[in-house]
Amino acid sequence: MPYSVIPSHQFIGADAEVDSADWVVLGFPFDSTCSYRPGTRFGPLALRQASWGLETYSPALNLDLADALVHDGGELELPMGSTHRALTQIESAVQDVLARGQRCIGLGGEHLVTLPIIWAYRQKYPDLKVIQFDAHTDLRESYLEEPLSHACVMRRVAELLGPEALVQIGIRSGTSEEFEWMATHKTQVVSSALFQMRLLPWIDSQVPIYVTIDLDVLDPSVFPGTGTPEPGGMQFNQLMEWLTMLKRANIVGFDVVELSPPYDASGVSNVVAAKVVRELLLIANQSLA
Amino acid sequence: MPYSVIPSHQFIGADAEVDSADWVVLGFPFDSTCSYRPGTRFGPLALRQASWGLETYSPALNLDLADALVHDGGELELPMGSTHRALTQIESAVQDVLARGQRCIGLGGEHLVTLPIIWAYRQKYPDLKVIQFDAHTDLRESYLEEPLSHACVMRRVAELLGPEALVQIGIRSGTSEEFEWMATHKTQVVSSALFQMRLLPWIDSQVPIYVTIDLDVLDPSVFPGTGTPEPGGMQFNQLMEWLTMLKRANIVGFDVVELSPPYDASGVSNVVAAKVVRELLLIANQSLA
Amino acid sequence: MPYSVIPSHQFIGADAEVDSADWVVLGFPFDSTCSYRPGTRFGPLALRQASWGLETYSPALNLDLADALVHDGGELELPMGSTHRALTQIESAVQDVLARGQRCIGLGGEHLVTLPIIWAYRQKYPDLKVIQFDAHTDLRESYLEEPLSHACVMRRVAELLGPEALVQIGIRSGTSEEFEWMATHKTQVVSSALFQMRLLPWIDSQVPIYVTIDLDVLDPSVFPGTGTPEPGGMQFNQLMEWLTMLKRANIVGFDVVELSPPYDASGVSNVVAAKVVRELLLIANQSLA
Amino acid sequence: MPYSVIPSHQFIGADAEVDSADWVVLGFPFDSTCSYRPGTRFGPLALRQASWGLETYSPALNLDLADALVHDGGELELPMGSTHRALTQIESAVQDVLARGQRCIGLGGEHLVTLPIIWAYRQKYPDLKVIQFDAHTDLRESYLEEPLSHACVMRRVAELLGPEALVQIGIRSGTSEEFEWMATHKTQVVSSALFQMRLLPWIDSQVPIYVTIDLDVLDPSVFPGTGTPEPGGMQFNQLMEWLTMLKRANIVGFDVVELSPPYDASGVSNVVAAKVVRELLLIANQSLA
Amino acid sequence: MPYSVIPSHQFIGADAEVDSADWVVLGFPFDSTCSYRPGTRFGPLALRQASWGLETYSPALNLDLADALVHDGGELELPMGSTHRALTQIESAVQDVLARGQRCIGLGGEHLVTLPIIWAYRQKYPDLKVIQFDAHTDLRESYLEEPLSHACVMRRVAELLGPEALVQIGIRSGTSEEFEWMATHKTQVVSSALFQMRLLPWIDSQVPIYVTIDLDVLDPSVFPGTGTPEPGGMQFNQLMEWLTMLKRANIVGFDVVELSPPYDASGVSNVVAAKVVRELLLIANQSLA
Amino acid sequence: MPYSVIPSHQFIGADAEVDSADWVVLGFPFDSTCSYRPGTRFGPLALRQASWGLETYSPALNLDLADALVHDGGELELPMGSTHRALTQIESAVQDVLARGQRCIGLGGEHLVTLPIIWAYRQKYPDLKVIQFDAHTDLRESYLEEPLSHACVMRRVAELLGPEALVQIGIRSGTSEEFEWMATHKTQVVSSALFQMRLLPWIDSQVPIYVTIDLDVLDPSVFPGTGTPEPGGMQFNQLMEWLTMLKRANIVGFDVVELSPPYDASGVSNVVAAKVVRELLLIANQSLA
Repeated sequence: MPYSVIPSHQFIGADAEVDSADWVVLGFPFDSTCSYRPGTRFGPLALRQASWGLETYSPALNLDLADALVHDGGELELPMGSTHRALTQIESAVQDVLARGQRCIGLGGEHLVTLPIIWAYRQKYPDLKVIQFDAHTDLRESYLEEPLSHACVMRRVAELLGPEALVQIGIRSGTSEEFEWMATHKTQVVSSALFQMRLLPWIDSQVPIYVTIDLDVLDPSVFPGTGTPEPGGMQFNQLMEWLTMLKRANIVGFDVVELSPPYDASGVSNVVAAKVVRELLLIANQSLA
Repeated sequence: MPYSVIPSHQFIGADAEVDSADWVVLGFPFDSTCSYRPGTRFGPLALRQASWGLETYSPALNLDLADALVHDGGELELPMGSTHRALTQIESAVQDVLARGQRCIGLGGEHLVTLPIIWAYRQKYPDLKVIQFDAHTDLRESYLEEPLSHACVMRRVAELLGPEALVQIGIRSGTSEEFEWMATHKTQVVSSALFQMRLLPWIDSQVPIYVTIDLDVLDPSVFPGTGTPEPGGMQFNQLMEWLTMLKRANIVGFDVVELSPPYDASGVSNVVAAKVVRELLLIANQSLA
Repeated sequence: MPYSVIPSHQFIGADAEVDSADWVVLGFPFDSTCSYRPGTRFGPLALRQASWGLETYSPALNLDLADALVHDGGELELPMGSTHRALTQIESAVQDVLARGQRCIGLGGEHLVTLPIIWAYRQKYPDLKVIQFDAHTDLRESYLEEPLSHACVMRRVAELLGPEALVQIGIRSGTSEEFEWMATHKTQVVSSALFQMRLLPWIDSQVPIYVTIDLDVLDPSVFPGTGTPEPGGMQFNQLMEWLTMLKRANIVGFDVVELSPPYDASGVSNVVAAKVVRELLLIANQSLA
Repeated sequence: MPYSVIPSHQFIGADAEVDSADWVVLGFPFDSTCSYRPGTRFGPLALRQASWGLETYSPALNLDLADALVHDGGELELPMGSTHRALTQIESAVQDVLARGQRCIGLGGEHLVTLPIIWAYRQKYPDLKVIQFDAHTDLRESYLEEPLSHACVMRRVAELLGPEALVQIGIRSGTSEEFEWMATHKTQVVSSALFQMRLLPWIDSQVPIYVTIDLDVLDPSVFPGTGTPEPGGMQFNQLMEWLTMLKRANIVGFDVVELSPPYDASGVSNVVAAKVVRELLLIANQSLA
Repeated sequence: MPYSVIPSHQFIGADAEVDSADWVVLGFPFDSTCSYRPGTRFGPLALRQASWGLETYSPALNLDLADALVHDGGELELPMGSTHRALTQIESAVQDVLARGQRCIGLGGEHLVTLPIIWAYRQKYPDLKVIQFDAHTDLRESYLEEPLSHACVMRRVAELLGPEALVQIGIRSGTSEEFEWMATHKTQVVSSALFQMRLLPWIDSQVPIYVTIDLDVLDPSVFPGTGTPEPGGMQFNQLMEWLTMLKRANIVGFDVVELSPPYDASGVSNVVAAKVVRELLLIANQSLA
Repeated sequence: MPYSVIPSHQFIGADAEVDSADWVVLGFPFDSTCSYRPGTRFGPLALRQASWGLETYSPALNLDLADALVHDGGELELPMGSTHRALTQIESAVQDVLARGQRCIGLGGEHLVTLPIIWAYRQKYPDLKVIQFDAHTDLRESYLEEPLSHACVMRRVAELLGPEALVQIGIRSGTSEEFEWMATHKTQVVSSALFQMRLLPWIDSQVPIYVTIDLDVLDPSVFPGTGTPEPGGMQFNQLMEWLTMLKRANIVGFDVVELSPPYDASGVSNVVAAKVVRELLLIANQSLA
């Protein structure tokens, strides 16, 4: 054929067929009761398109997406404003992936999408551990009396898996009650030395680990395209250092959430999000080799 | 005092005390399950601030806000993602206004906020009529199985008040089923002559009329700051002509919805929305004189 | 399946398989020697995504995309800066479509992409006529000594098909020489009465007609997202009136070009472009019925 | 020389030497006490750059800038926050132009820059008439106790030349006192018939006319890049129709003000402003032929 | 009441009545002779609104705004272009606050607003010290012959209080003369060790200190929303480290200036500014305990 | 003269006449086959305008542009889409500068403009060395079969001068083949210690050095205004440290490329680019003293 077609709606290098893939990328464009436009619901597609401005090769890791079996499963159509129903559909989609023996890469969407992903994962991996990168604790009991909110998502996760299954990195905003909860349950990790100490037994035992990255963990200068920017966050390379510590861990899935493309007209945030996915995917894929 | 303070968070000229007012402006910043930022939830405040770029005097109407008794009641704090609870709170706030014998000016927010306003109004005005300016029919039975959606709001209103109480102007988008519903129930009005015919008995009888303006009735060139722009709409002055026909009507309340400031960096949409409120308020206030 | 996936990278309603389609949508993201980002190369994808904010039903035409057989063939990967090679690949892709007995809908990209489309069409339809909607004549002999430029594309087309095969609508910018050329060859049409006169024999004979729409024919207020905005153009509904005159014509293909999403942060231009495609497709599809 | 250089900081076609010119373009980037950036001070340069996206030939007028002798004198460096001193410098610069027997084209900057231009013009042309295109009356006695404000500029002009020397077109915003002033002094013109009646004696007597165009006379959809957008204004072609009526008038100078490029990221407002200058210049230049 | 109202025009947590407050927030929206829109005059309101995206609790300081008595006094209405009159009104407003025994938090506006604040403070605190965070020296004798300019503000302050009362941090732009002035008068501090040495006697003696933060002291990547960005500045956490050194100082007032919201469409700069205010307020409030 | 004119289209301080200059600034606005607008072609002019927001004095270097003889030669008019012809014209313009015994400062435009500059320089300086600051290797043999692409430019340079004449700094993106090429040819330098080792003989021998700075070497947070942002780059001050190491080198010319103003609405990228030019010019000018 004298011409070729670009699948720019897929993540770069995600060219495996659904049945031969180790990883399945799914978009969860959930953010509101509106039926069209505002916010993070445009995150997954923007992230995929931006991924084509990157190479498949990571010089930092000396790894290439060409050596990973990734399928892009597209974007779920979710009912905005019907929170519970939307979450149920996300859970079903992830169950499908896990039932095929594959690992899921979730693209948000708001952070609440992590909750139904964990619902599905816990069924398969009862001893699941969760590592959260985030600016915010997301540990409220409820938010404006609502227990299913992105401000509460990690509290719900901790209720399911136990707080000892949770590690929180990059946290710099919350109520004093939330910070007390973290102190009580020792979920917050503030130095890489402590993180390595927490990780060591998990890596040794190859316990299944799920990583959830709320991109607002990055400083707003690095990642302005998000709904609740919190100054004082990580530089891009700092996040990469944290992720690189996961190299020998058994990462059974991960998500990257809270990219809101309308808030960054330069498009840089989309590229940042795509590069985070590429690097973490390459790191996680090593445990399959 | 050698200096003065600008109340730019209030609508221009809305300087009446709550008890002496004929009109109460209320903001309904409802749009999503997010706790901060995207979309129409920023509409009410942006509209108010932009109003200060206008004068209180309308040369087109030769009327001045200085002659209207308007109080600005501020913005409700609403639980995103908990649709039913948010609607209940809006209903309560409007009931308060009506209980004081006042008329409500609602600032959206998404169009769904009109539904609880109508719930409250119908209790006081059982024979209420509704005039809808909109690009979209908003007449779906349900949207992604959800009956409480901005795509369904006028269907819900028609169920409450009867389709004969509804007039729809500017409609240019919908499913074929929705257009059939409009034809069956004769709700759509496409010429000013027909509109005047429909209005005449309502003006003569001074039946209570509620006006809901989804600003996307305007052409997206005039009003780009909205979530679902639909090309082919009205120019600003065309909308003014329609509104001017309401001059002798008994307008007991109105809302102006679907302003989404983040989508128009020029700020023009905010000014357009504010001018629509000023003009309709001046027109409606005449029936109190 | 308890969930569904949105193919938002395809034009809305373009869900036919490649072999059963009457129409094939192709994206020609050609604009520069840069390998990534600026300008109209992002047009086709943005147009498709924006199409999902529309309905499949057109109330103005009372027609529905559900009744058209459309396949979306995706986006060509084109070598920026190698103009001749890029054009050759576009020609090949269009030849494929025509060889299957189908009609092509081209999404630009800059206006130069029309030239290789015409190369392919002329082989199948030697008596092809071309109707151009545009702000600019695009009739230069060469531009900065370059004959393959978007400023020259219609001159090249006229050389191939003869000037009598060309009708130009909406033109309001060019050199005096270009306007003289239009006058000499009577290609410019400035009133709908003249257009209907020109169209009548073509409709009667059902001669094959190709329509090329440079979206800058619209006023920049309606369509700011383009590289060379020229004030004083058509309103959206005026363009619709011109297109509606084509209702009984034998439209064998069309393109919609010069959408440059980065220049319109509101996203309105993307929606305008998508609606132009929907309406013209519905009009053209009637001749297949 | 095998290459050429683009003078994109000059208005297109303004390639005459200073001594041989009939017209001199001057930029008055005055808007604030800030020493750098916000607002209309960036207007003149943006307008010039955008002019290179136009042709020198106007098909509407069938005239070409190639036939006008225009020099671009650059941008004055003005002390922000020192209003009186800035105005004095503008007056001096315009006096220079007039002393050479030339006509001045002023590019704003805020509308207040028109005042010192008129100071200079009145010295040379005691019987000067002024035609103002504007959304706002600009007729306040003072604004926040300040008589030298862009809200007062035409009141100051009227005091100098007498109200009978002033014609105001497009006005749609002001206080009721300002509208009464216009009615008393019959300065406002609302129909083209009335305008032609007012113009006729001025054209017959070839009295010197100065035209000041506050670009916010245009609808904000056409011209969003301005500080005080006022919905309900002219379409671009409507402004052109008004200007075309000036064809045989003795236009001795004009200005185009209130372009604020930061407020229109699409750049369309810059192009609109540039086209207004081109068309009015071509019209005015005819009286020199 | 079944609903609550958000005072988003007030700084978060500033819910004390005017008479019971220790601190009074005042907005000084001064930037130009324009009566509406461009630049820093929109800073104070944008900062307040953005503060609602933060929590009242600071984990870095382990302090909460709930424990501070803060009143928000709103925004002064200031005559643009009448520099001296505007400054006089700011002075009066600050005098009022000081007369009630309270401390002032000024929100700019351009940096010149600091001058009248100092005028008022010096009357109450003759031994006042000033700590300036800024990218620019602001030490010119005059700017374009104007002594009242934001380029001269700290020179005026130094003339009032003596250069030994001034400490300058973060400076990286100025003329060579200005840098020589700083060297002569030893006002510039470039290391935290030197700063602590300078601070020690001031903390020991509890001398009254006023802190003025021109936000362009931050790197433009962190804070793009300002009029004169100067590359090479502080990261957010670096500024926090400097401010934290003030923990035991007697801060009698402070201002945060030069936020220009129109230049940062992402809104991040607004949040950065709000967080700077929250942190410095919490630090300063400790000296009241 | 009572007023002065700002030459804001020239680089600040570039006020030498062409014949008395040591340095000549030239703009190479080349980026695409489009005849108007998108991308880096607007870089040179935006960079110059932004330079006026800086001072001529650099406190970091304690040097002032007032002590350098710089002429601004303006912007070449280049045929977009005709790559080879555009490159030839750039080569000619640089040859002119070199023939007058001057040194060239090239402002891009895309990185491909460096190739014809090197063509010209190699004729005068056969032993030329090149130091490249860049995020991307730019070392492809060809890109989509095209050897003249910005993805290939440094490969072409290495073919001309030999790989040993090339030093590459900041590289963090490319194919694995490109990284192997860098390793084979030892062109990449990743630490300042290695850089100083490489520089030492070049400084001792005063060999002619050309510096090419692709601004995407900076982190996208610092420099979002570019076509291919690559997260994980340098802070501004880090780039300054690298450049400062060149202090005693014989820099015979340099370019600063890939500024794309439309992608950074804040304008910060323009200022960053201008400051890079100022600092490198001041450093390079020392070798002339």
